[in-house]
Amino acid sequence: MEFDVFGIENPLIDLLATVSEEFLERQGLTKNTMVLVEQERFQALLAALSGTDIHPEPGGSCANTLLGIAQLGGRTAYCGKAGRDDYGRLYVEKLRAAGVEPYIQTDGHLTGSTVILVTPDAARTMNTYLGACQDLSPADLPLDALRASRWLYITGYLWDTPTQQEAALLALRTAQEAGIPVAMSLSDPFCVGRHHADFVDILRRYVTLVFANREEALALTGQETAQEAYRALRGWCGGAAVTLGAAGALAGEGEEMIYAEAVPVLPVDTTGAGDAFAAGFLYGKTTGASLLQCARLGNAFAAQVVQKMGPRLAGDVRALLADVLERPRG
Amino acid sequence: MEFDVFGIENPLIDLLATVSEEFLERQGLTKNTMVLVEQERFQALLAALSGTDIHPEPGGSCANTLLGIAQLGGRTAYCGKAGRDDYGRLYVEKLRAAGVEPYIQTDGHLTGSTVILVTPDAARTMNTYLGACQDLSPADLPLDALRASRWLYITGYLWDTPTQQEAALLALRTAQEAGIPVAMSLSDPFCVGRHHADFVDILRRYVTLVFANREEALALTGQETAQEAYRALRGWCGGAAVTLGAAGALAGEGEEMIYAEAVPVLPVDTTGAGDAFAAGFLYGKTTGASLLQCARLGNAFAAQVVQKMGPRLAGDVRALLADVLERPRG
Repeated sequence: MEFDVFGIENPLIDLLATVSEEFLERQGLTKNTMVLVEQERFQALLAALSGTDIHPEPGGSCANTLLGIAQLGGRTAYCGKAGRDDYGRLYVEKLRAAGVEPYIQTDGHLTGSTVILVTPDAARTMNTYLGACQDLSPADLPLDALRASRWLYITGYLWDTPTQQEAALLALRTAQEAGIPVAMSLSDPFCVGRHHADFVDILRRYVTLVFANREEALALTGQETAQEAYRALRGWCGGAAVTLGAAGALAGEGEEMIYAEAVPVLPVDTTGAGDAFAAGFLYGKTTGASLLQCARLGNAFAAQVVQKMGPRLAGDVRALLADVLERPRG
Repeated sequence: MEFDVFGIENPLIDLLATVSEEFLERQGLTKNTMVLVEQERFQALLAALSGTDIHPEPGGSCANTLLGIAQLGGRTAYCGKAGRDDYGRLYVEKLRAAGVEPYIQTDGHLTGSTVILVTPDAARTMNTYLGACQDLSPADLPLDALRASRWLYITGYLWDTPTQQEAALLALRTAQEAGIPVAMSLSDPFCVGRHHADFVDILRRYVTLVFANREEALALTGQETAQEAYRALRGWCGGAAVTLGAAGALAGEGEEMIYAEAVPVLPVDTTGAGDAFAAGFLYGKTTGASLLQCARLGNAFAAQVVQKMGPRLAGDVRALLADVLERPRG
C-alpha cells in the first residue's frame, strides 16, 4: 500500500484569535459551533478583530487528523482545493514538511480560511470562509492514489457544497469498489443538522467507522444517551467511536464495545480535540492495535492538543504519547 | 419472595461535620478514605470537633443502599449488630420508618459510629468506631429471611473483623445453596487493600454482581484502565458495575457492557455516592430493568445524594428520579 490513510476535505488557513465572551455576543455568534460565511462577512469579522494578535496556520479538520497520523509515523495523503495565493502555497509547503503527500489542486478563488475565536473558557467558535475549497470536484480526485491507500477518511464538512459532495461520493464509491474501509467524522453538531438525512444514508452505505462527539451522536441518532447513540451509529456502520469530552470515549466494532477514560488535563483551547482523537484512533487501526489502545491513543493525542492554543502539535508527537505507545493495552 | 434485597453490614450512626483541610492535616487523616479507629481515638476526635455542629444520623454503607431501594419501592431487610443504647434504638426506629425490615441484634458494646469529615471540596474522610457492629456473628443471621429474598447484598467492610467475616461467609453459602444472586460492594480502596486476596476469592466463588468505583476496581484487579479493570471483575463474577465519578459508569453482564453518562451536577458532599448508585442499580435489577436503565437509575440517585450533605435522601425519591423512572432506556 502507498498510504495508510487518504483524506479529502477543506485546506483551510486557521486564523486563531483570543476574544471575550462579549465579542461573541456583539458578533451574534453561538459558542462552540462552526458557521460558514461569505467573503464579505469574513472580511468584516477580520476588521472587527483588527488590533488582535492573529497568526495564520494551516488547519482544516481532516488535514489536522492526517498530519497527526503522519506525526505518529503513518503514511498519509491529503486532497483538497486551494487558491493560487500565498496561503495556498503555505498550505502545500506545510503538508510536505509534515510528511503528508499533498494532492492540492488550485483555482482562481482565495484559499479558504477559518477565523477561530477562543474564549477564556477554552471553547472555540469558528467562522469559515470556504473560498477555493468549495470548488473541489470529482475531476480533482487522484483516484489511483486513493486506490493505493488502506483507509479513506472524510468529514461531514464535504456535504456543505454540491461539487464537494460529488467528489466525496466518487471517493466513497471508489473506496467501496476497491474494498478500502472508510472512516468518517460527523464534523460538528450544526453540520449534522444541515445534512441529517444524507449522513444517515452515507453511514449506512459506505462507512466502516464513524467518529462523533456525544452532541453530534445524539443529534444524528435522535437518542438521549451516549450508549444508545453509539448503538445506533454502530448499527449503521459496523464501527463507531463516540468522544465524551472529559468523560473519555466509547468505541466499538460489531458486538465489542470498549470505554476509555480521558487523560485528566486542564484544557486551554479545545480546537482540534476531535481531529486529534481521530488521528490517534486511526493510527491505531492502521497498526493493528486493539480497540482500547486505539481509543487510548485518541484520548492521549486530544489531551495534548487541548493543553495548547490551536489544533496541531509541534515537536516529537511520539515522545509526547510515549506512555501510551509503549504500553499498549487491550 | 418476602424481600427484594437482604443486606448485611454495620449499623453505624453518622456524625457529619464540616471541617477545613487544615483539620485533616492536624489529625493526620488521608482525604477520601475510611479508617477504623478504637474507642479512645474516636473520643479524642470528637473532643477535637467540640464546638463544631454535628448531627447524629443513621448511616452505614449497606443500610444507605437498602434504604434507598426502599425509597424507590423495593422490599428490603437489613441485618447487623448495635448496642443497647439510644443510638441503637434510633437506628432501628429509622429503619422501620423507612420501610426497611430490621434484623438488628444488640449487645453490650456501644452502637458503632462514623465521624464523617467533609472538606470544602466536597470530599469526605471517615473515621469509624465499629463498636457493637464487630460482634455480628453467624448466630445473628436470620437465615429464613435471607432464603426468602431475591438478592443478597453485602459489602467489603464485613471483612474487617473475624466474626463478621464468618457471618458473611455463612450468608454467602446460604444464598448460593438457595440460588440467590449476590451483589457485593468493594466499599473503599483502603478496604480493598486490607482484604485483597479474600475479595478476589469471594468474588470468584460467590458474587454475581460487584460494585466498585474506578479506584477500587484498579486496586483490586491491578489494572490501569477502567475497561481492563471492568473486564477482570466481570470475568470473576459474571457481572460488574464500575462507577467513574463525574464520567459516569460502566456496567455489564456476560458479553454485554454498557456505558451510562453521569448526571451533570455540582457536588456538595460525595458521602454515600457509591451507596446511592448501588441502590438505584439494584432496584433496577429487581424490577427487570435493562443494564442501561439500571446504571441510569444508579447515576441519577447518586447525583441527588451528592448535591446535599449526608449519604441519604429525604422526601419523595421516586419524584426526584421521575425523569429516569418514567422514561426507561435500554
